[in-house]
Amino acid sequence: MDISSTRVITLMTDFGTSDYYVGVMKGVILNINPHAQIVDITHTIPPQDIHGAALLIDTAYRYFPSGIIHLIVVDPGVGSHRRAIICRTETAYFICPDNGILTHIIHNEEHIRTVSVKNSAYFLPQISNTFHGRDIFAPVAAHLSRGVSMDKLGNPITDPVQLPVPEPKVMNEVIVGHIIWIDAFGNLVTNISHDMLESRAGEAGVVIRAGNAKIADLNHSYAESAVGEPLAIIGSSNRLEISINQGDAAQVLGLKRGDEITVCMT
Amino acid sequence: MDISSTRVITLMTDFGTSDYYVGVMKGVILNINPHAQIVDITHTIPPQDIHGAALLIDTAYRYFPSGIIHLIVVDPGVGSHRRAIICRTETAYFICPDNGILTHIIHNEEHIRTVSVKNSAYFLPQISNTFHGRDIFAPVAAHLSRGVSMDKLGNPITDPVQLPVPEPKVMNEVIVGHIIWIDAFGNLVTNISHDMLESRAGEAGVVIRAGNAKIADLNHSYAESAVGEPLAIIGSSNRLEISINQGDAAQVLGLKRGDEITVCMT
Amino acid sequence: MDISSTRVITLMTDFGTSDYYVGVMKGVILNINPHAQIVDITHTIPPQDIHGAALLIDTAYRYFPSGIIHLIVVDPGVGSHRRAIICRTETAYFICPDNGILTHIIHNEEHIRTVSVKNSAYFLPQISNTFHGRDIFAPVAAHLSRGVSMDKLGNPITDPVQLPVPEPKVMNEVIVGHIIWIDAFGNLVTNISHDMLESRAGEAGVVIRAGNAKIADLNHSYAESAVGEPLAIIGSSNRLEISINQGDAAQVLGLKRGDEITVCMT
Repeated sequence: MDISSTRVITLMTDFGTSDYYVGVMKGVILNINPHAQIVDITHTIPPQDIHGAALLIDTAYRYFPSGIIHLIVVDPGVGSHRRAIICRTETAYFICPDNGILTHIIHNEEHIRTVSVKNSAYFLPQISNTFHGRDIFAPVAAHLSRGVSMDKLGNPITDPVQLPVPEPKVMNEVIVGHIIWIDAFGNLVTNISHDMLESRAGEAGVVIRAGNAKIADLNHSYAESAVGEPLAIIGSSNRLEISINQGDAAQVLGLKRGDEITVCMT
Repeated sequence: MDISSTRVITLMTDFGTSDYYVGVMKGVILNINPHAQIVDITHTIPPQDIHGAALLIDTAYRYFPSGIIHLIVVDPGVGSHRRAIICRTETAYFICPDNGILTHIIHNEEHIRTVSVKNSAYFLPQISNTFHGRDIFAPVAAHLSRGVSMDKLGNPITDPVQLPVPEPKVMNEVIVGHIIWIDAFGNLVTNISHDMLESRAGEAGVVIRAGNAKIADLNHSYAESAVGEPLAIIGSSNRLEISINQGDAAQVLGLKRGDEITVCMT
Repeated sequence: MDISSTRVITLMTDFGTSDYYVGVMKGVILNINPHAQIVDITHTIPPQDIHGAALLIDTAYRYFPSGIIHLIVVDPGVGSHRRAIICRTETAYFICPDNGILTHIIHNEEHIRTVSVKNSAYFLPQISNTFHGRDIFAPVAAHLSRGVSMDKLGNPITDPVQLPVPEPKVMNEVIVGHIIWIDAFGNLVTNISHDMLESRAGEAGVVIRAGNAKIADLNHSYAESAVGEPLAIIGSSNRLEISINQGDAAQVLGLKRGDEITVCMT
């Protein structure tokens, strides 16, 4: 990876956009590297939702150019002894608190190097109790984007924190998964992958149960269903999703993250 | 129009900002054109609100530099047979699903060329059922910004979808319009234009009825009315708007999009 | 300050992000200065909340590079006779309506020059009643970023509007401050500074009262308290904040801006 090309820094946080927090992180970055290009992924991860951040960065990172720096700050342990880490894959850097945000990245990628950030020469001079996004993560990302090496910024580690990732249960003709994300449209994203469905169901039909709704077979577009009707579809992250054509499935079906979704082969 | 100058791509979607959707579209664009400059117009068009998107892009596009690319994704028909189009005016490109988003642009502009996007060589290799913003629209916009011609991207069409646009009714001394947009302040934007008022009312006074409120004459600033009082004013899109000085007119008056607003010449 | 380096323009408004307002301001800026780099601080200042804007820009501006232009539009007096001003400190420009937004900046900075913006040659040709962000502030910022001098844009003034800033009351061993901001996490930011606490309490302990909660002593990280428990901490703006570890203090304690927070030395 050409380290000199790491000009783009993406931001993902749970800071919301109604405070000065995100703006100030951008100020700190531009102060250190005026040529950085900053791209917001999202700042409305639900507060302290590490699982959500882990899922979103996993779904997003493949689409960014090689040599990019992903800065992810969802940090309930700020000010405690949790580590700050930089993780380098073959195509990108990830900077975040060491709390499991990179669980899926570490699972996916073969060649990974991780350091625990230690070198306070690359932090802001004053470190607050509550905002390491500004005081540590943003300056470290900016220095990295200027070509400072990972090894100058921290010490190698091999044990970054990883979260348990519940897999769907498969019993004979039944797959029991659950809802892992609800998007802004109210679409229910499950942990049942397209591959899992295809290898099990093959040419057979499927029936999907989501709350009180019983959905016969998969759609290939929202428009195949009547407006307001629940439908099942392979969504943009290659996972089974439950949706309502021009409606909000979470609201209509009364379902939330963690709830079960069942698929029966017929 | 100097096609080599189309470096700026604006984004308008109904994706919200709490998912990875918008961030990923930016990743796809930067992957194809690292020199693209991306400007967010809004991502909180109400879900599937094609009329709203049509209105907002119409109100916004005149203020952008010549040679710009406007990428607009409000796409309830994603995955169905609806077309994807590029429309070129004398000053800008518009890329969007062919569902009426460009109704006002097509109405305003004399010299327009439109193609139906067909050339999958310029799409992402895998096309999902649900996210053509990422898989088709973003890459096509990025290639266009690198100088790929419209004719390489699609085939000319002359029948882009257009929405019906209800005009105010004029009866003797009365104009009956309706609310076409409510902004974040709660201001009620009507489809009664400044020109229409001026040509009808001239030097005469007007009385405006909005729900239970009766407003005598037009203001020239919010501050002319007492705090909390309903007022009528020609807003920033040259349309009659109903507002409340330092208040939320939609909430206070209990009005919504589509509701009637009446103007009587006195 | 090297005026030729003022390429970055930050935006802070109460326009929200669901309309075309912010996008259009960016369009106007890029139309005048295609090389401008625009950085959003926030667009969800509560409507007409001048005190909030004054606080946020004060908390943010020190972190941005020298030579930056801060454009702040919270403008309940738009269309009235309130002035538009540019204020230059040793490191930055601030452009905003003259309504008190710069209260803290003017208080902090020693060397300040302010002009009242007058020269309509640098405005858009048509000035609306309701959107000077687009018609006046954005174009003036863009021209400033291209090197047009303050003196060409307006006339010097020495009396910019300043808001009253209530200070905490100190009585013997008691400090009575109040809540000046509630962030997106529900953290309650007070006007009691770290310095004030330190100079009063020294080595002594403190007890903090916030609504019905009684908090013994200060934390150094959220994680020192049990999840769901109220805590007091010096926050990222060096002010006393009341928080709940992984919770929303405003909601749980039922407190709002302006409410009293009391500190007793023990």
